[in-house]
Amino acid sequence: MSLAMTKEELMDYLGEVFPQVADDFAIDALSEEHVTMRLLTAERHLRPGGTVSGPSMFALADCAVYAMVLARVGRQALAVTTNSSMDFMRKPASNTQIRAECRLLKLGRTLAVGDVLMFSEGSDKPVARATMTYSIPPEKT
Amino acid sequence: MSLAMTKEELMDYLGEVFPQVADDFAIDALSEEHVTMRLLTAERHLRPGGTVSGPSMFALADCAVYAMVLARVGRQALAVTTNSSMDFMRKPASNTQIRAECRLLKLGRTLAVGDVLMFSEGSDKPVARATMTYSIPPEKT
Amino acid sequence: MSLAMTKEELMDYLGEVFPQVADDFAIDALSEEHVTMRLLTAERHLRPGGTVSGPSMFALADCAVYAMVLARVGRQALAVTTNSSMDFMRKPASNTQIRAECRLLKLGRTLAVGDVLMFSEGSDKPVARATMTYSIPPEKT
Amino acid sequence: MSLAMTKEELMDYLGEVFPQVADDFAIDALSEEHVTMRLLTAERHLRPGGTVSGPSMFALADCAVYAMVLARVGRQALAVTTNSSMDFMRKPASNTQIRAECRLLKLGRTLAVGDVLMFSEGSDKPVARATMTYSIPPEKT
Repeated sequence: MSLAMTKEELMDYLGEVFPQVADDFAIDALSEEHVTMRLLTAERHLRPGGTVSGPSMFALADCAVYAMVLARVGRQALAVTTNSSMDFMRKPASNTQIRAECRLLKLGRTLAVGDVLMFSEGSDKPVARATMTYSIPPEKT
Repeated sequence: MSLAMTKEELMDYLGEVFPQVADDFAIDALSEEHVTMRLLTAERHLRPGGTVSGPSMFALADCAVYAMVLARVGRQALAVTTNSSMDFMRKPASNTQIRAECRLLKLGRTLAVGDVLMFSEGSDKPVARATMTYSIPPEKT
Repeated sequence: MSLAMTKEELMDYLGEVFPQVADDFAIDALSEEHVTMRLLTAERHLRPGGTVSGPSMFALADCAVYAMVLARVGRQALAVTTNSSMDFMRKPASNTQIRAECRLLKLGRTLAVGDVLMFSEGSDKPVARATMTYSIPPEKT
Repeated sequence: MSLAMTKEELMDYLGEVFPQVADDFAIDALSEEHVTMRLLTAERHLRPGGTVSGPSMFALADCAVYAMVLARVGRQALAVTTNSSMDFMRKPASNTQIRAECRLLKLGRTLAVGDVLMFSEGSDKPVARATMTYSIPPEKT
């Protein structure tokens, strides 16, 4: 087990393949089974009242698991989300960044599963949890 | 069983409480247990290659079930998503609108559950499915 | 699109590979994208008060999607469940059979997805819904 | 935050309200936000080949979260599962017990959410994960 990409290579690669969203996220930490990602909350992520929207939390969780998978298997921009489950448990604090702590639960030949807990910055009560399954296409030879 | 709001009242209300997203969606049909909503696909909903992004499909499904619940219980902007499950089954066609067909499975005193199938316009093979649970706060008196 | 097995062949096959549970279920109808299966409710499926237990409804939904996949791809006893989401919406009626209506949403090369609505016999209000994903192992040659 | 029941009181109570299944499970550890429960694997939990069945893992996860909720709110046998998501990630080892590590993510006034990782005894690779939502009925006064 080892990483195929460093934190910096990963951010560069996300910027290349997802120019639309790479500015939304920062990677705080990366290891072989964990990544910590932050949503750089901006006006476009908010609902009235200043709380982060559900779709923005979905995007954060999805991107965290994608980054985790890429960090292990290398540049496979074609890995696609096949399943997601989410629980929204608390209202996020107004106008704060959201921290996602992702753990890789399985990295198989064709399927990868990651678990994500999300927190308003400064709180240790989770605002949401998510599990994402990615399908990894076979390597072309 | 009857509707608390018409299709037009519903669109007006969504525009009022969610000005950020109301332009993204149109309601095609509304009845006591079904709503058909369309994602008015624009550049901001796309991934490289022109397919609609996962977070945009999440937003569509979430908004469809929210509209369905509102149409039944009336103006309760505080109803919140507590759980979501999604399966992404096919790649959406490039640069097309997405049609969401939502069915209300349960409308209880405190929880509502809706099921959503999503299709690329012109196709009858679902690109994704979603189930959303909404928590309905008790009426204030 | 056509069926690889008839209803009778399917029941025989389930009895062969799952002798422990084949007596729990009956197949009422089978077509290319739908199967209707019934839980032959017995004491071992009940909770105090006489309602069907959650694990029994999970088993019913899981078996319905498995039967649907088998009916299409043929005898592949190794197909395995990789993901499940369920919503329990109403208390099943006491001491009744449960009818599961399964629809095949996707049958890909490696993944199949089926949706299931479950009803107490005689009612048209769903007691539960489930989605199951099956992983289909590559054919050995 | 404190426990409303000890590990022994909890086991006694489960034996009282769920006589059918209480023999299937043992509680190894209990604290304010975690419970470790074990499936005492017997013939009735197995599939051909000796691996623990999906419904048995569902029952284990469901019972672990139920026990966690009861341990906090006290004897509320009426708390009911409203939602479940599960990922089956690895084949359980043959003929072994399954250990479930449950964490309470939310204990609200009406909804509780718990996360469960399951392992074949002796392994640290999860065979499955589950999230369960319980609805807690209002106290009668």
